[in-house]
Amino acid sequence: MGKNDKDDFSLRDVLQIPPDPGDARAHLQEIHPAATPLAPGKKSHTKKQMKKYGPELTDLQEKLYAQAQADDVDRVLIVLQGMDTSGKGGIVEHVFGLINPAGLLLRSFKAPTKEELAHDFLWRVTKALPEPGTIGIFDRSQYEDVLIVRVHDLIPEAEWTARYEAINGFEADLAASGCRIIKCFLNVSFSMQRERLIARLDDPNKHWKFNFGDIKERGYWADYQVAYLDALTKCNSDGAPWYSIPADHKWYRNWAISRLLLETMRDINPQYPQMDFDVPDLKGQLAAPN
Amino acid sequence: MGKNDKDDFSLRDVLQIPPDPGDARAHLQEIHPAATPLAPGKKSHTKKQMKKYGPELTDLQEKLYAQAQADDVDRVLIVLQGMDTSGKGGIVEHVFGLINPAGLLLRSFKAPTKEELAHDFLWRVTKALPEPGTIGIFDRSQYEDVLIVRVHDLIPEAEWTARYEAINGFEADLAASGCRIIKCFLNVSFSMQRERLIARLDDPNKHWKFNFGDIKERGYWADYQVAYLDALTKCNSDGAPWYSIPADHKWYRNWAISRLLLETMRDINPQYPQMDFDVPDLKGQLAAPN
Repeated sequence: MGKNDKDDFSLRDVLQIPPDPGDARAHLQEIHPAATPLAPGKKSHTKKQMKKYGPELTDLQEKLYAQAQADDVDRVLIVLQGMDTSGKGGIVEHVFGLINPAGLLLRSFKAPTKEELAHDFLWRVTKALPEPGTIGIFDRSQYEDVLIVRVHDLIPEAEWTARYEAINGFEADLAASGCRIIKCFLNVSFSMQRERLIARLDDPNKHWKFNFGDIKERGYWADYQVAYLDALTKCNSDGAPWYSIPADHKWYRNWAISRLLLETMRDINPQYPQMDFDVPDLKGQLAAPN
Repeated sequence: MGKNDKDDFSLRDVLQIPPDPGDARAHLQEIHPAATPLAPGKKSHTKKQMKKYGPELTDLQEKLYAQAQADDVDRVLIVLQGMDTSGKGGIVEHVFGLINPAGLLLRSFKAPTKEELAHDFLWRVTKALPEPGTIGIFDRSQYEDVLIVRVHDLIPEAEWTARYEAINGFEADLAASGCRIIKCFLNVSFSMQRERLIARLDDPNKHWKFNFGDIKERGYWADYQVAYLDALTKCNSDGAPWYSIPADHKWYRNWAISRLLLETMRDINPQYPQMDFDVPDLKGQLAAPN
């Protein structure tokens, strides 16, 4: 048994970034990228614990989907944000691979297309929101529109500063409509990013993952930290909280995301809907030989 | 060891429906819904074999995705068609749950929306096609437009009869553009459908899956068989073949789909792209302390 196999703890309480900017800064320093708060054990034990969440997650997911057939509006949106190599792809494979793809809606946001640029920045994310009963995952999100555009001066300052409030309004409406929002800042260190980029270069089978732009973006690391701190504090409400996910250990990062999802799903506590059927009559109809 | 653990057989050869209508009818009678051709063993052994395909499928899927980053066009489309309870949902959960959701595009086609009806019947399927490097799954498909609309006289006969040729043109273009198409007719028997519908009624936790329309549709079973036979023979080319999947045993049905996908992926034989990098130079750039 690892130390946290006892299951009544709240990882959300520990990883949630406080709304006050000063407290947020302190929290981000305290929970550093290589930390493993509340981990059930070391690497192999923690990986096993994550796999053990699979059946419970699948069960909760089926109930979530089932109750939506009776017009329940509950649904979940997980937002993944982080610097290159922080592990968005690994989370999709290892965490969301645990659950039924039928109830999963994954959307990756790349540089906006011409069509997307012709609309308000929230247009493309609004179109990609999960339906009732499902779990949506944003691999990057509306936050790119206050991160990369700010760091690279792609739009005037007045425009991106106005976006924090637009995002807050969007997320408040979404939460009020029955969507649980889990925003994950995947906190990878500068040195771990170097290590992972070098690992990609050292393995020819990983070259396809290597992007020349990654080295250039690395040069803006400090600017990104400033932009992230603003995004994490200016848009951080009870209905759409940010969690700081230490991301230097892949096994911890994956477990933490699966745990945040599990705690949220338990909180929703979805139930199979009770239908008003005349079961004997329906069975009688089915007995007919055709 | 089960009898078919030896891995050099072709399930595709056995399950593929011949193009000639007479031969097709004979094949559909020969491979009946409760058959288990080429199964590696009985239920538990076959389920284990399917799980063993997981790592190879994941590896092939990653390579497929990787080579698309170097502009390779290969991709896969799996079409699932069958009567209610034939197992489309179970296949998505158990077969496609084996692979990375990042490379999977699932689309379920329900009764067409007003917007969809305002377009040609192929509009909505065209929009849902998988990108290069990914695996698309259609849960129902363009074939609904020659099945349900025909059985229920929803459009004039001249209109649905013209659709076979339209589907053939669409699928020929798709295949020519680098998409492997695997069309699966999930062949469930009339009596097994009854059994499964009764099981849904007997378990209150499955009531949400029960649809009153299912009993009504059951009354049209014979009409559907006629409509299916036309769909399976009029639209059945080398580039877009139909497979008859015996679907009375869930364990066989799931294994068969995973096996068809595996054989197709092996056939594609995707490769990690070779990039022309100056690795030492890039590593030098990464060494900079910022």
